[in-house]
Amino acid sequence: YSSMASMERNHNFFFRQLFDHESSTYTYLLGDTSNKEAVLIDPVYEHAERDANLIKELGFKLVYAMNTHMHADHITGTGKLKSLLPGTKSVIGKGSGALADIYLKDGDVVRFGSHQLWAAATPGHTNGCFTYISHEQCMAFTGDALLIRGCGRTDFQEGSSETLYKSVHDRIFTLPDHFILYPAHDYKGLTSTSVGEEKKYNPRLTKPLDEFVKIMEGLNLPYPKKIDESLPANRVCGVF
Amino acid sequence: YSSMASMERNHNFFFRQLFDHESSTYTYLLGDTSNKEAVLIDPVYEHAERDANLIKELGFKLVYAMNTHMHADHITGTGKLKSLLPGTKSVIGKGSGALADIYLKDGDVVRFGSHQLWAAATPGHTNGCFTYISHEQCMAFTGDALLIRGCGRTDFQEGSSETLYKSVHDRIFTLPDHFILYPAHDYKGLTSTSVGEEKKYNPRLTKPLDEFVKIMEGLNLPYPKKIDESLPANRVCGVF
Ligand SMILES: [Fe+2]
Ligand SMILES: [Fe+2]
Repeated sequence: YSSMASMERNHNFFFRQLFDHESSTYTYLLGDTSNKEAVLIDPVYEHAERDANLIKELGFKLVYAMNTHMHADHITGTGKLKSLLPGTKSVIGKGSGALADIYLKDGDVVRFGSHQLWAAATPGHTNGCFTYISHEQCMAFTGDALLIRGCGRTDFQEGSSETLYKSVHDRIFTLPDHFILYPAHDYKGLTSTSVGEEKKYNPRLTKPLDEFVKIMEGLNLPYPKKIDESLPANRVCGVF
Repeated sequence: YSSMASMERNHNFFFRQLFDHESSTYTYLLGDTSNKEAVLIDPVYEHAERDANLIKELGFKLVYAMNTHMHADHITGTGKLKSLLPGTKSVIGKGSGALADIYLKDGDVVRFGSHQLWAAATPGHTNGCFTYISHEQCMAFTGDALLIRGCGRTDFQEGSSETLYKSVHDRIFTLPDHFILYPAHDYKGLTSTSVGEEKKYNPRLTKPLDEFVKIMEGLNLPYPKKIDESLPANRVCGVF
């Protein structure tokens, strides 16, 4: 892109990060301030009203309520947002095992106004994990594939450490170093990272594959607190 | 600014928002990626090591550890950061009642690399409250003067609802509508707002002065949990 062209593109781009303290989930609102179309990535059920209210205040029309994957740690807000904001369509990756209005496959493009998100399949944490990339804004939403100095667990759902490693190295670490990465979660008060940082400092994914697999095997994480209520709900787009 | 000039300015600007779950405090790291000078706004004592580590990983030299005011709800990280990152100078508003290496008065400019923050006195929550404004980046750090859809309490330290109202209306609401505002706290998972939004939707500060004063008088907030340990520590730049 030439500087001027990219300047023009940025001009009508809106971005807002939101947080759920309970599950430490980040939700992202992206919008086109010219035609007022917006998308919401990884909304949380308990905040559907907060999010719908903010979207209304800002004058946006929510076209898509998207998930990076079928979450096991919180109930998605997509279903409730569909009833709060009629006309909204739910979006999730094909292979996620969850119901939605639109199923994405690798390489699909999600458009809102003059902006777009490119869906890159990044399985490994689950089969249906997608990373949503804005090449125009130099940002990507990595879900649980890549977390800040970490990554999603691979011991539940269809988890596979080998697949996750390949996804991150092939689809995320190949983005330019200055791309800002926004994860689905952070537990230490960090809000974003960059490709360059994670390629240098991610304590797991900078290791060779065999070492990464051993690290993931040795995590000994507790059984996910809310998985038994989250998965059945998220399979049908949340409760509403 | 012309588009191209502002493009150039943005080019070497780094920005990262950080969070403390305990006190719901936001800390902000701003840097010049060319000469590697950085400033940190409102660091929290318990996260000094997290912040120092991130600053080192990113290759920054922390020139200033700044506070928007003398906080009553957490101990500042400035003192500890000074020992973790030698050469760092602590900065706070004159009239805050707190010790620091540098005292700001209204209109002072804080420089890091080719970037600058303009210090605007916004008393009312405390006497020494400052808002730090980047005209170049269209952003301002409002401390507790203006919170997202709210504002800091005025019943402690040198709180004055009349003064706070005047500060916000004269110094923050006069900024362009598209300026992004970053507060010292948020308790609902919101991370930023804009001048335009707050001028339209702030439930307190959109009211006439007399109504605002009554709202603030009627808040009946509990005694600040950590005030008795925070203020003595923050008077001397934190514990370290
Ligand atoms: Fe997940
Ligand atoms: Fe405060």
